[in-house]
Amino acid sequence: MKFEVLGTSGSARLGRITTPRGTVNTPAFMPVGTQGTVKAMSPEELTGMGAEIILGNTYHLYLRPGHRTVEKLGGLHGFMNWPGPILTDSGGFQVFSLASLRKITPEGVSFQSHLDGSRHFLDPALSMEIQHALGADIIMAFDECTPYPSTQEYALHSLELTTDWALRSRQAHEELSRGKEITPSLFGIIQGGMFRDLRMRSAEEITGIGFDGYAVGGVSVGEPKEDMHDIIGYMAPVLPDRSPRYLMGIGDLKDILFAVESGFDMFDCVMPTRNARNGTLFTSEGRISIKRAEYADDPSPLDPACGCYTCRNYSRGYLRHLFLAREILSMRLNTIHNLYFYLEFMRNIRAAIAEQRFGEFKGQWIETPW
Amino acid sequence: MKFEVLGTSGSARLGRITTPRGTVNTPAFMPVGTQGTVKAMSPEELTGMGAEIILGNTYHLYLRPGHRTVEKLGGLHGFMNWPGPILTDSGGFQVFSLASLRKITPEGVSFQSHLDGSRHFLDPALSMEIQHALGADIIMAFDECTPYPSTQEYALHSLELTTDWALRSRQAHEELSRGKEITPSLFGIIQGGMFRDLRMRSAEEITGIGFDGYAVGGVSVGEPKEDMHDIIGYMAPVLPDRSPRYLMGIGDLKDILFAVESGFDMFDCVMPTRNARNGTLFTSEGRISIKRAEYADDPSPLDPACGCYTCRNYSRGYLRHLFLAREILSMRLNTIHNLYFYLEFMRNIRAAIAEQRFGEFKGQWIETPW
Repeated sequence: MKFEVLGTSGSARLGRITTPRGTVNTPAFMPVGTQGTVKAMSPEELTGMGAEIILGNTYHLYLRPGHRTVEKLGGLHGFMNWPGPILTDSGGFQVFSLASLRKITPEGVSFQSHLDGSRHFLDPALSMEIQHALGADIIMAFDECTPYPSTQEYALHSLELTTDWALRSRQAHEELSRGKEITPSLFGIIQGGMFRDLRMRSAEEITGIGFDGYAVGGVSVGEPKEDMHDIIGYMAPVLPDRSPRYLMGIGDLKDILFAVESGFDMFDCVMPTRNARNGTLFTSEGRISIKRAEYADDPSPLDPACGCYTCRNYSRGYLRHLFLAREILSMRLNTIHNLYFYLEFMRNIRAAIAEQRFGEFKGQWIETPW
Repeated sequence: MKFEVLGTSGSARLGRITTPRGTVNTPAFMPVGTQGTVKAMSPEELTGMGAEIILGNTYHLYLRPGHRTVEKLGGLHGFMNWPGPILTDSGGFQVFSLASLRKITPEGVSFQSHLDGSRHFLDPALSMEIQHALGADIIMAFDECTPYPSTQEYALHSLELTTDWALRSRQAHEELSRGKEITPSLFGIIQGGMFRDLRMRSAEEITGIGFDGYAVGGVSVGEPKEDMHDIIGYMAPVLPDRSPRYLMGIGDLKDILFAVESGFDMFDCVMPTRNARNGTLFTSEGRISIKRAEYADDPSPLDPACGCYTCRNYSRGYLRHLFLAREILSMRLNTIHNLYFYLEFMRNIRAAIAEQRFGEFKGQWIETPW
């Protein structure tokens, strides 16, 4: 993997990640393909709207269908027919948010599957093994996503665990990579809760181990926006200039603007896809709920300013009907629109950085009621 | 509408229906688009797999979003972005199968909506008004679908009602068509239950009124296959040669073979689409249930003999995973396959008739475990 910074506008960076499977222009938004599919989308639709990289979830794919099955069926790329770059998470976040009866020890995490109650044990070595078997292009170190709220004591303990697991992740990754021609890139994850000194210490330790990219985890876990923006603001400058900076799980468009301004390059969130399925759609004027009665006879597109397939071909009235009738096409058309809207937003962000007017761009959009 | 018979093989007919919105090669299978969408499909996907005509349901669209709303939003074609021919049913069948508290009088049917319990009254004039407002290319006379089983007395009464409603449907259709440049074609429907003499009488009365095409209704309502095949066999010859013959609601592939052999030209059924969503898939070897454990690690396509998007790009293992994970893409890929399989089957039927070897074709497929 190669990362180049092609331009800046303030601290905002225009960049390019080159992987053997394709190029990712940054700042990039990664649609989430939890279970080996970006919900409701075909790979061609994703490519058509300009998605350059997607995310897969280690926890889900490990439990079902199992990483060895995915490996036999062509790795995640062949399995889901997505030829471009894929980033997989470490599995940690979902273990903490979905599984039950979790028990964290210095060795790893034991938990019960949310699907069938079966017992499992995930540790840095297994996380690396799964992500290698899936064949992802960018993989994440196994971490503990520090919950919110946490005491300073807990956050410190969690940080230390994450550092230890990062080291073990890197070791396992190196062993799995030995003798292979194409190997994934490994990103480290910074934790530290809401405590600036712990965040700084985590950044120091994780960058000290050395990774191909650096992610900030443990944000958007329930904390006030001010705390999140504080972390975004003070974390970016202490992460290495020459590596991609990934703000995990952030998808609010205003938060993306703040994070890009601070120097983050990569984002992922289920917000555009999940909201789409719930009938909440992003437009250049703000969010709309497509089920509202005012749209019943409305012949205009969702967003007259949008060039997506949905906006070019369907009326608000039709989209409202499909949503109320719970038709599958509703989820498809809404998802196409929301993802296109996000990807177009990122294209506009990149254009603004290239033309060194990101501050102006941010000012223009920051008040939109998204 | 123009209908031409281009060739025959025994009683099987190769034909072509020409409408202002496009051509339909017959024998034709019409995918069902109940609520203004063929479930899980985009119009482009339907066109891409060779669908030339689709069906819309008057009952559903009348209740939601309402035919006046559809009319305002471009008619059914504009509403759902389907530029080709559309056939709408009369609403009768769904009133009898879905609505509650039905009361049939000589004037029409009063019923309660299955959606919200609201009370409605549907008669031939309203059925025509709805179908004209939807802007369908082929519309159906309002009939009573005679239930199974019925006494001869009930079937006779139902037949007489259907004849009276057919006459009133034609009158209302003519009034609605007056002064319009493009008007839909109207098909009459033969009833008569399981009684050959009543079927013959219904055929005589309906063809006596005169329609652009003739449909046989009240089949596949629970009767034994032998009864259905009897009706198919003795009905086709008494329907006018020069008009399309439509066997309503029939979608079993073997039944289609029998009906084509007898001289039927048009078919519709939810079988390929509904089965797809339930994980039951049609292949050249017979039906398969994609959830079966034997497919877990199977890298082969659903049907190696199939050229559909799903079979060209995905493994049985992936399709099984998507189905078990209840992913929307499962319904999409399965529906694409089943509809393609049906449409390809019809293409092969047409080729066999064109080459005057339909009997051989039927013999080849009639034993397949579909």
